[in-house]
Amino acid sequence: MTDSSPAEAQERQGPSKSELKKRAKAAEKEKRKAETAEKQAAMAQQKAADEVDFATEFYGPLPVNQSQSRPRRERSQISTLSSRDGESVLIRARLQHSRAQGNKLVFLNLRQGIHSVQAVLAMKAEKVSKQMVKWAAGLADESIVLVEGVVTRSPVPVQGASVSDVEVHVQQLHLIAGVAERLPFSLEDASRPDTEYQQADAQFNRVLLDTRLNNRVVDLRTQTNQAVFKIQAAIGDMFRNYLNANGFIEIHSPKLQGSATESGASVFKVGYFKGTAYLAQSPQLAKQMAIAADFERVYEIGPVFRAEDSNTYRHMTEFIGLDLEMTIEEHYHEVMELLDGLFLSIFRGLREKYQHEIETVRKQFPAEEFKWREGPEGTLKLTHREAVQMLIDDGVEMGPTDDINTENEKRLGRLVKAKYDTDYFIMDKFPMEIRPFYTMPDPEDPTVSNSYDFFMRGEEILSGAQRIHDPGLLKEVMRSKGVDPESMKGYVEAFNMGCPPHGGGGVGLERVVMLFLKLNNIRRASLFPRDPKRLEP
Amino acid sequence: MTDSSPAEAQERQGPSKSELKKRAKAAEKEKRKAETAEKQAAMAQQKAADEVDFATEFYGPLPVNQSQSRPRRERSQISTLSSRDGESVLIRARLQHSRAQGNKLVFLNLRQGIHSVQAVLAMKAEKVSKQMVKWAAGLADESIVLVEGVVTRSPVPVQGASVSDVEVHVQQLHLIAGVAERLPFSLEDASRPDTEYQQADAQFNRVLLDTRLNNRVVDLRTQTNQAVFKIQAAIGDMFRNYLNANGFIEIHSPKLQGSATESGASVFKVGYFKGTAYLAQSPQLAKQMAIAADFERVYEIGPVFRAEDSNTYRHMTEFIGLDLEMTIEEHYHEVMELLDGLFLSIFRGLREKYQHEIETVRKQFPAEEFKWREGPEGTLKLTHREAVQMLIDDGVEMGPTDDINTENEKRLGRLVKAKYDTDYFIMDKFPMEIRPFYTMPDPEDPTVSNSYDFFMRGEEILSGAQRIHDPGLLKEVMRSKGVDPESMKGYVEAFNMGCPPHGGGGVGLERVVMLFLKLNNIRRASLFPRDPKRLEP
Repeated sequence: MTDSSPAEAQERQGPSKSELKKRAKAAEKEKRKAETAEKQAAMAQQKAADEVDFATEFYGPLPVNQSQSRPRRERSQISTLSSRDGESVLIRARLQHSRAQGNKLVFLNLRQGIHSVQAVLAMKAEKVSKQMVKWAAGLADESIVLVEGVVTRSPVPVQGASVSDVEVHVQQLHLIAGVAERLPFSLEDASRPDTEYQQADAQFNRVLLDTRLNNRVVDLRTQTNQAVFKIQAAIGDMFRNYLNANGFIEIHSPKLQGSATESGASVFKVGYFKGTAYLAQSPQLAKQMAIAADFERVYEIGPVFRAEDSNTYRHMTEFIGLDLEMTIEEHYHEVMELLDGLFLSIFRGLREKYQHEIETVRKQFPAEEFKWREGPEGTLKLTHREAVQMLIDDGVEMGPTDDINTENEKRLGRLVKAKYDTDYFIMDKFPMEIRPFYTMPDPEDPTVSNSYDFFMRGEEILSGAQRIHDPGLLKEVMRSKGVDPESMKGYVEAFNMGCPPHGGGGVGLERVVMLFLKLNNIRRASLFPRDPKRLEP
Repeated sequence: MTDSSPAEAQERQGPSKSELKKRAKAAEKEKRKAETAEKQAAMAQQKAADEVDFATEFYGPLPVNQSQSRPRRERSQISTLSSRDGESVLIRARLQHSRAQGNKLVFLNLRQGIHSVQAVLAMKAEKVSKQMVKWAAGLADESIVLVEGVVTRSPVPVQGASVSDVEVHVQQLHLIAGVAERLPFSLEDASRPDTEYQQADAQFNRVLLDTRLNNRVVDLRTQTNQAVFKIQAAIGDMFRNYLNANGFIEIHSPKLQGSATESGASVFKVGYFKGTAYLAQSPQLAKQMAIAADFERVYEIGPVFRAEDSNTYRHMTEFIGLDLEMTIEEHYHEVMELLDGLFLSIFRGLREKYQHEIETVRKQFPAEEFKWREGPEGTLKLTHREAVQMLIDDGVEMGPTDDINTENEKRLGRLVKAKYDTDYFIMDKFPMEIRPFYTMPDPEDPTVSNSYDFFMRGEEILSGAQRIHDPGLLKEVMRSKGVDPESMKGYVEAFNMGCPPHGGGGVGLERVVMLFLKLNNIRRASLFPRDPKRLEP
């Protein structure tokens, strides 16, 4: 049979165009089907892997009370990572922020104190599941996490982290402690300098000081504050080290007093069983009694209390006094010079060992580098009379023995800076009439006293003097200043048993921190500041 | 003329016997006269010399306010004199006592802190006048003097001075500060051990603790007390040095609080402008907040206040707390072991560097040497349950989770000493029910807690624990202990912002001093102690 159907004829001629299209479609469909099956198989595999991954605890919260095992696996410091390219590390850190990119990648900003690093969590078969990525992306800012990963050199410098040359490729991620409440402000906002807020197009909220102090636990976590309190601790350490090396011993004197110790200044009253006690406004009396008790050279670091209803940028009701007192052999300048040596050792120590912290603070609080005179000329020393003359020459109207008020102190600071290029100087020989009754008069001119103040950036940071150790002279000066010696019998009696000539000074720790770093408000230099309006947190 | 008078005849015969006697007498008289004249001349000369000596200030009081010149003459330390035989030295010292021998010799006992030396002032032409000797003999005990003299090897060991191989031969003697009142007791009497007072034939007055504390400035001058406070300062230093070396920073937290921080304990109320404040009973809350604020490892040395009307030998209303808090990586034993390392470093430091002070104290307060375990076995660690079992085995009737009272703590201390030969041990895993609400329960047995106490000579000197950092668990435990979380909202909220696992402890400085030295009363370890009955001096 040669005769054929049209279809057969067509077949012999080859498939028609429409038929070809149809077949291509089907093949395509089949292919896609196979691909989908493959994908599904892959996804099923991945899902199984995820379950394994969950089961083997690649991520998730850790038990709250821990203390169940102690593998002694070392935790790494973020500050050391730059030199550890390729190493596997375990890091406990604050999660400052996590940022997802698609659903397979999360960037984590990890913070430890003043250091931070970027960590990257990328989906990866059998290691990092999609769920793990999703979980990580959902972690609250300021959670505390434990990250295991590999330090890897970053192809481009990482922005927004203090470690910019490496990042951590995350393999495991655990939550140590979550955040149960909305943060009062972001750490980024809390870390901006005032200049950023002042820009017209600023897109963020300014975090006011009161808001910060109300939420101090969060505020203290900024790199700025971490640096501020490292510097505060360093100043205390250098104070002690210098004095220990110079034959001083540390004492602790009681803050609860049977009577108000220094006349004039306001004092807090304490209910003391059935009576009343007073909070010490300074360790002045106790220091002097320690000298009368033969301790020769003593210092104390402790709280002092001032019940002054003053809400300025430089007053608190409680602050840390760095106080010292020492015997004098020949001349009260022995004390003044020791105090000068003490300050120089602190300034030098900060410059040598805390430059990174100083620069960290400066990013938020811009300031000129703190300057002092080194070399043979030594620290600038002006007499009170010379200082007043500088002010008079600059147009200030005042008498030669007038007290220099806060405004004029700052003006003097500017004049001194312009003329001598120093932020630090000593003023000596204050008029007797503006110093407390326990101040020793000058042996040649009793209108002047053996007393001094130290200044930083135009503000007083230390007040000190030779003290009167002779009970007869003490009573005489008390009377001349209108203080009845009988009203402070206990104080006067301390000198009846024989007390060597001595002098000293008191420094406000927070004031030194504030002025060295130019923080502009003393509350920023106090962990949990106290003023007439603030007793919390 | 050959005839002669009988006298002439006699003359020729030579003088009669009576005449001879007469002449001898006259010659004698003449001689004596010459000698007297010579003596008078010498005396006049001496008198003139004395006047010169007075005029050139070989002795006499120095001007009160000094600071007139500054020759920079070095003052010598009594402790260095043994090796300076033949040297001329200048010494400022306390005159403990002067004793005249005849009218030409005075022995002076000079004291500087825990060191003393004998000085000898002998009349010597043109250098040391009789008046000078008389003046020196009349100087009041406890005057402060400036002595110039030559160090001279003593032919026999000097009694009653810490330097016994040399004495100082005085050339000049000046009074720096006198004593205007009768001393309440002599330094010798104040320095005797109890055993001397207990002798039946004791010839001196026992100086009672209250008398000492009322006149603390004089009492503190004893060599015993000079050593006690050197050791106190050393403990503070070693505490800081160890912690600084282990990554801690010092913080200062406010003592004025807006509310009573720890429920239960008594708290002092302070009038705070128009409101009320409370004195912190510990830095517990502030330390924990510093951890929540990322400071990682913190310590504080400062006063803590306890309004407990308790007048025992081991309680004060104000004392110095050595507090620390640190994050935990895996197990709370990290904290316990760090605290153990801290105490061992203090004990070792005292043994290595303060043996002289320890021995000085022991003369007045006899005690067995403080013992602890060194070597690979390490510090003895008992669980609370094991400790209770030791007491039960010794016949004490108590339940396994009962608190161990003070009396039984001492008994336990004796049992431990007998069995393990140590005065220092750690008790771990206290029952949850006898610890404060912020204590972390054990992960496996919630009736037990992750907490510990440290003991010295059978008395608790440190209490510490892992704290609850999870706000949910904290509220749960608070409720279970009958504390309303709402009543301490500020405290609970501190943990809502994310806080790492942490633990710490608090040490009473004075208690460590008292127990190490076995002073038997904590007031002896406090410069100016405060208790419900004492706010002065």
